[in-house]
Amino acid sequence: MPRLRLALGQSNPVVGDLAGNAEQIVAAARAAAAQGADLLALGEMALTGYPIEDLASRPSFLVDAGTAVTALAARLEAEGLGHLPVVVGHPDGPHEPRLLGTSNAPTAIAQNCASVLQGGRIVARYAKHHLPNYGVFDEYRIFIPGDELLVLRLGGVDVALIICEDLWRDGGPVGRVLESDAGVLLVINASPFERDKDEVRLPLVTRRAVETDTVVAYVNIVGGQDDLVFDGDSVVVDGQGGILARAPQFSEHLLVVDVEAAAATDTELPPNVRRVKLAGGGAPSEHPVPADIAVLPDDREQLWNALVTGTRDYVRKNGFRSVILGLSGGIDSSVCAAIAADAIGAENVYGVSMPSRWSSDHSRSDADDLAERIGLHYSVEPIADLVAPVETQLALDGVAAENLQARIRAIILMGLSNMHGHLVLTTGNKTELAVGYSTIYGDSVGGFAPIKDVPKMLVWELARWRNEAAQARGETPPIPENSIVKPPSAELRPGQVDQDTLPPYEVLDAILDAYVGRELGRDDVVALGFDAATVDFVTRLVDRAEWKRRQGAIGPKISGMAFGRDRRMPITYRPTR
Amino acid sequence: MPRLRLALGQSNPVVGDLAGNAEQIVAAARAAAAQGADLLALGEMALTGYPIEDLASRPSFLVDAGTAVTALAARLEAEGLGHLPVVVGHPDGPHEPRLLGTSNAPTAIAQNCASVLQGGRIVARYAKHHLPNYGVFDEYRIFIPGDELLVLRLGGVDVALIICEDLWRDGGPVGRVLESDAGVLLVINASPFERDKDEVRLPLVTRRAVETDTVVAYVNIVGGQDDLVFDGDSVVVDGQGGILARAPQFSEHLLVVDVEAAAATDTELPPNVRRVKLAGGGAPSEHPVPADIAVLPDDREQLWNALVTGTRDYVRKNGFRSVILGLSGGIDSSVCAAIAADAIGAENVYGVSMPSRWSSDHSRSDADDLAERIGLHYSVEPIADLVAPVETQLALDGVAAENLQARIRAIILMGLSNMHGHLVLTTGNKTELAVGYSTIYGDSVGGFAPIKDVPKMLVWELARWRNEAAQARGETPPIPENSIVKPPSAELRPGQVDQDTLPPYEVLDAILDAYVGRELGRDDVVALGFDAATVDFVTRLVDRAEWKRRQGAIGPKISGMAFGRDRRMPITYRPTR
Repeated sequence: MPRLRLALGQSNPVVGDLAGNAEQIVAAARAAAAQGADLLALGEMALTGYPIEDLASRPSFLVDAGTAVTALAARLEAEGLGHLPVVVGHPDGPHEPRLLGTSNAPTAIAQNCASVLQGGRIVARYAKHHLPNYGVFDEYRIFIPGDELLVLRLGGVDVALIICEDLWRDGGPVGRVLESDAGVLLVINASPFERDKDEVRLPLVTRRAVETDTVVAYVNIVGGQDDLVFDGDSVVVDGQGGILARAPQFSEHLLVVDVEAAAATDTELPPNVRRVKLAGGGAPSEHPVPADIAVLPDDREQLWNALVTGTRDYVRKNGFRSVILGLSGGIDSSVCAAIAADAIGAENVYGVSMPSRWSSDHSRSDADDLAERIGLHYSVEPIADLVAPVETQLALDGVAAENLQARIRAIILMGLSNMHGHLVLTTGNKTELAVGYSTIYGDSVGGFAPIKDVPKMLVWELARWRNEAAQARGETPPIPENSIVKPPSAELRPGQVDQDTLPPYEVLDAILDAYVGRELGRDDVVALGFDAATVDFVTRLVDRAEWKRRQGAIGPKISGMAFGRDRRMPITYRPTR
Repeated sequence: MPRLRLALGQSNPVVGDLAGNAEQIVAAARAAAAQGADLLALGEMALTGYPIEDLASRPSFLVDAGTAVTALAARLEAEGLGHLPVVVGHPDGPHEPRLLGTSNAPTAIAQNCASVLQGGRIVARYAKHHLPNYGVFDEYRIFIPGDELLVLRLGGVDVALIICEDLWRDGGPVGRVLESDAGVLLVINASPFERDKDEVRLPLVTRRAVETDTVVAYVNIVGGQDDLVFDGDSVVVDGQGGILARAPQFSEHLLVVDVEAAAATDTELPPNVRRVKLAGGGAPSEHPVPADIAVLPDDREQLWNALVTGTRDYVRKNGFRSVILGLSGGIDSSVCAAIAADAIGAENVYGVSMPSRWSSDHSRSDADDLAERIGLHYSVEPIADLVAPVETQLALDGVAAENLQARIRAIILMGLSNMHGHLVLTTGNKTELAVGYSTIYGDSVGGFAPIKDVPKMLVWELARWRNEAAQARGETPPIPENSIVKPPSAELRPGQVDQDTLPPYEVLDAILDAYVGRELGRDDVVALGFDAATVDFVTRLVDRAEWKRRQGAIGPKISGMAFGRDRRMPITYRPTR
């Protein structure tokens, strides 16, 4: 069987940064060529970043992306890399607006494409067929589906090229493209991380490989983009389902592997399949490269790495160098500080203890201890003298006075952020966010929320894991034991603990998992064995907290294009001008 | 030609409030029956409210909605209204998850349906074919398209029934359903207001009526739902394009009209069209009802009414009775106060003047004047003594000190809100929001933003219109002339005016309209004749302000169901338990 040396470039693009993303691709091409690769593939939208959201309906954005693809082909040629076929993902357009399936809105003017660059030119292009429109995906909103399939003939092998969701769809293009006797199925992806996704994604890749007796080469982007984290985990699987190569999660990597694949035949192509012959690929090296086969770390380490990656890239891609956060001595802020230090280095993390008259001694001493363990910048700003004048002037008491303390802390962090250029991290966890157990414009203030999607029970679990990992490496565990074991409290009134107001966290998290995560109804949740009154209490809080989760940015829409609901834009976006 | 008396019920549903929405429908049925109507139609999703967003993928929600439809049919019968056919919109499901067009995600388990109730039962059902997935619409995400058409035979007339987008789509079901010789085309809608929409919507209805020589009866819901405002404007047009009846915008209304329509024939039905015979409709009254034909007010009045409706319904539907806002003496807060007073009455509006050491005399005196003119509750809370301790303790200066003032004001409003239960209104306009010219967690704080989608130039225009309208009615103009004519300023430092930082508002709004509203690229905007450096400055601000518009609620997603990006939920939501 013919042999091909495949290179998969796991790059970390920034949405909109065409020049910077192209630079990453050129670097990958240099390295791939140096290792004698026959083909280099980058991830889905590697040239523009993913997701581009409604930027896809801006014609000038598409024109810029098109220019960048052409320029990239020319640049590769000019650098002596033109012989290497490079497969790169990008949006293509503007096309004539096309009606989208069942709607009348001609808003989609782009396709989600993979271009094949060789000899200074674009020699072939594939447009994604299957456009996901669920969960975090809005592709059916912004893209026109493709209707043609592409096979690349290279070194005696037919390489079928598809994009991400195309692989997931039973009865999709995978079957048809493989009727063409392709020996390799190349899939370029922007597939976000989520917990246990490796239990779904790798089996799918393996199943497709075995079903079709084909080598499947799966390349994913890596890095954080707003609230998405791409984990990479690019992989190559042979027709028996064996892993030939696997890239590490959460880091940029060039995965190079020699594959043996079925020789191309000249059977007639199925309808809508186009075959493009590429130059090269005919002289396999005598010396096979040893391929990397990364081993996935355990669940908790994967989660920690996702949080660290998301935090690091949000900070870096938005032009910050440092972060600031309040340290209460509690578990949430301690874990956020440890994540931040792992992400950008303790020397770039500024922690502020902001004790009130109700703060316990341990809130201060645990924060001191954390700061010392992590080695972050630490300061103390007591709030009593700042709270008192407001409380007195406005005659606040009860919950209003409790919230005031959290809001004065927010003012302190934002003031120091404005003075010194730190990004404010807000330290609320998913459980709090779900039930609205926070002070809006108080502890919910900040540009990034590292544990926004981490339920409270998991916060503790990750804290313990992080400490154990430090111990295993002979390092100081970053999180004080007392922050882990003490009863959680907002400390906004004397003796307050979270469980004055909320059910025990193990119960609360389980109800939330059922009601939010699995979308069960109230009765179904009760049927799982939870106390009905508790379920009613919790589900009511969840339903009522949506405005808090959105921080209240709601207002009547009177124009065809309002910010918010009808405009989906990336936050992390580096436009090319 | 046979005659039918049609009743169109323009109701104002609350998302999730099945009991309350059903009550509105029963009331409409009582009134329609009393007026001898042959058929009553309510709007799209009138039973659940619109949009229900991802509630549509919660099986228990769909079961509850289904139960409510059945109960509504029984209730109508029990109240002696069973003879009247009632067409009501609701989600139907859960269906077997079906693959959505080009994606693999089996998330859609609902259809967007209209049920026909008669004799205590559901006698027919239509599922919407064309599911909009652009702008504010996410229907392709949550619904399974229908594939069958429905014609109701009533009083010798065939009434074809479709839903909203079905009407807009050229080559959609409209053509096919009318091949059945239907005499009336009944369209139930949840069609949000936007500026000049009447210039699109009515011509479409008229065109369809003339094209098909059919009476078109178009019924829309009314009222605010989060950032959407439905304007009603239900209308009935004859086959010559003449308006037979038209309901007023922005208010609940029962529109009753006698129409003459082509007699039904027994031609063979086109494929996929089902005909259902309804009882009744055969005894036309001797005395035709005089139909209302509301006249649309001018553009500015429509906009004002949209803002008032959106504000009133957000306050009311979320269980508030009063609002609080900061009064700076400037145009934005003055207009917001006037909107709020028109929405819920001046006696429920609390204005707070919060002068700083940099506030001009007129900021105070103009706010006093406004409060007096409107007759709202008014108080003064100087901020100097609250700002000073924070500024001193943290050694803030420059922009950090400017922002501190705005944030102390936010703390005052939120404190008073927490003490007294008022909803905080934030008074930023669309121009500020676009370029990020505000203090995050400062003047951007609040649960609802009445002029969030109103560009600055339009704020002035609406202020002038509102004053003129008052004068024309012999009332006191609510907005002080000085607030309209003085140069806008944030007054966060001595002598500051907006135009120190921003281009003149007529230029800024025009650039924003091109770059945001019409999605032109930077070069295209420059080609319109704007100064290139100004365009670069403005577009850069817009691109960088997205995090501010979202108030920073971003964090890495690690689970299959995170709040935010992959969960689309209503804020205004009254669950039925």
